[in-house]
Amino acid sequence: MNEFELIARLTKTLPTNASVVTGPGDDCAVLDLGVPDKLILFKTDAVVEGVHFTGETPPEKIGHKALARCLSDIAAMAGTPTAALVTIALPRQFDAEFVAKIYDGLNALAVKTGVAVVGGETTTNPGGLLISIALLGTVARGKQVLRRGAQVGDAIFVTGELGGSLAGRHLDFEPRLAEARWLAEHFHLHALMDLSDGLGGDLRHILTASQVGALLLKSAVPVARAAKVAARASSTAKPAFVAALTDGEDFELLFTVASSDAVKLLDAWKPNFPKLKLSCIGKIVAGEGILIRDQHGTRAFNATGYVHFAK
Amino acid sequence: MNEFELIARLTKTLPTNASVVTGPGDDCAVLDLGVPDKLILFKTDAVVEGVHFTGETPPEKIGHKALARCLSDIAAMAGTPTAALVTIALPRQFDAEFVAKIYDGLNALAVKTGVAVVGGETTTNPGGLLISIALLGTVARGKQVLRRGAQVGDAIFVTGELGGSLAGRHLDFEPRLAEARWLAEHFHLHALMDLSDGLGGDLRHILTASQVGALLLKSAVPVARAAKVAARASSTAKPAFVAALTDGEDFELLFTVASSDAVKLLDAWKPNFPKLKLSCIGKIVAGEGILIRDQHGTRAFNATGYVHFAK
Repeated sequence: MNEFELIARLTKTLPTNASVVTGPGDDCAVLDLGVPDKLILFKTDAVVEGVHFTGETPPEKIGHKALARCLSDIAAMAGTPTAALVTIALPRQFDAEFVAKIYDGLNALAVKTGVAVVGGETTTNPGGLLISIALLGTVARGKQVLRRGAQVGDAIFVTGELGGSLAGRHLDFEPRLAEARWLAEHFHLHALMDLSDGLGGDLRHILTASQVGALLLKSAVPVARAAKVAARASSTAKPAFVAALTDGEDFELLFTVASSDAVKLLDAWKPNFPKLKLSCIGKIVAGEGILIRDQHGTRAFNATGYVHFAK
Repeated sequence: MNEFELIARLTKTLPTNASVVTGPGDDCAVLDLGVPDKLILFKTDAVVEGVHFTGETPPEKIGHKALARCLSDIAAMAGTPTAALVTIALPRQFDAEFVAKIYDGLNALAVKTGVAVVGGETTTNPGGLLISIALLGTVARGKQVLRRGAQVGDAIFVTGELGGSLAGRHLDFEPRLAEARWLAEHFHLHALMDLSDGLGGDLRHILTASQVGALLLKSAVPVARAAKVAARASSTAKPAFVAALTDGEDFELLFTVASSDAVKLLDAWKPNFPKLKLSCIGKIVAGEGILIRDQHGTRAFNATGYVHFAK
């Protein structure tokens, strides 16, 4: 049983109540706690030494990443973050200065994004450093964008460039909060999520939730320079395009809109976010899974790469 | 630098915003998110293998304890819990059946207390099992009870019996949610918290926050049978009364009310909660720290035991 199978089994029978608007399975839980014009977003995310950072990672960047990952999930609902609790599980031997610097990085991002850090705890974790962030946010009632609304014919967009995040960007990325809010305010987004596991895996969550498929245009997928550099560095490295689909930790936005909105959106985006690329990478189609079209034809794509030519 | 010194340093300069009613330092953070008649309670708490449970602890009890600890903090604000997120950090080798049983214990308590489990995550923790719960609750606006309101002359109360929790109660205690809400509805509680680190340590938090001292009557402190059994079991064990003040993990309520309410409260309590003891254990006095009176006189008490006779 892998992580996804375990989660599927555990989330089948979870207790619920009248406050739940959206339970497990989207970027955040959505709750109705009685705020007249808003819903509450609720999310936790943990980073673990040896998994999400190493013993050599500068502590400020660990703190930044821990909060930024959670903020990216609030962005993925087109929400605004409000307050965070920070759980730091420390090995029995720890350097207080190091922990203070983790907080420096975390607090700097909290200030920048208007988040109050309202407590948390330090506890012991014999195996190493683990930081879990719990984050509350809000979204205008009815303006939350889930994964399940993609429709056949929709244009598929991503912000930024994908792949090669491990070369550095995974530690200092900026969650796309303002961009997501602007998008949801000005356009009718059908589906939205943030890219944490890689486009190839994450797009599949939108497709499964929406019961549709996707056709991507290979030449339209924005490949990060870091992915190209890594691909050139060794003959056994992933091709850059495969890296863009499978590396993960991009923390860019992935969303769909009606195709009639696509050109309007691209035109309006540029003056508002001149420094951040926005790419239309394909369209939602009937069926399931991901197809990729290049100059040689159309092939199916799964998490491990191309599998076969489609008819 | 110990845990408390580190926390004091880290919480000095945390980012805040207009939503924060009560930040770090009480049982929960209190937020105003715009619910007309309610404030939001926000809390996280983690349990760690080898610290809060062992490899032999039945998984259902681990799940129960993880949620119950957090619920006890909502009780400590006289609040009502609403929704939880569950983070389970697993060793690289794990038994899915074991994890499912952790959820069984957790879910059973969630159902009993009306809590929706709205997601969370599983992640890898090379050092062992760690479960962190993030919990949201609500409290009627103005009805939250903090630690800082104790006044000279107040009567000090505890629910239940203290000490010896490690013999079993720490794994299956019932958070005092209904009791705390009843208390806050019917009496003006000046200060309230839950007992997690032991009466001797926790009462000090109320005293420091309220800038007062306490005089406890030794004979009035309810000592749990488990603490007496442990004290009798070995000549080197803590005396039962010291265990009641220092063992921790009691998860009972500690609160103060005006002395004029004390008798009324004891009378009203009995018919409402016939199975749960309520004890008036002393009073709030001017000064600082804890004094304990027995048949031999009055002595100061610190976390490690009696220190000296007071004048």
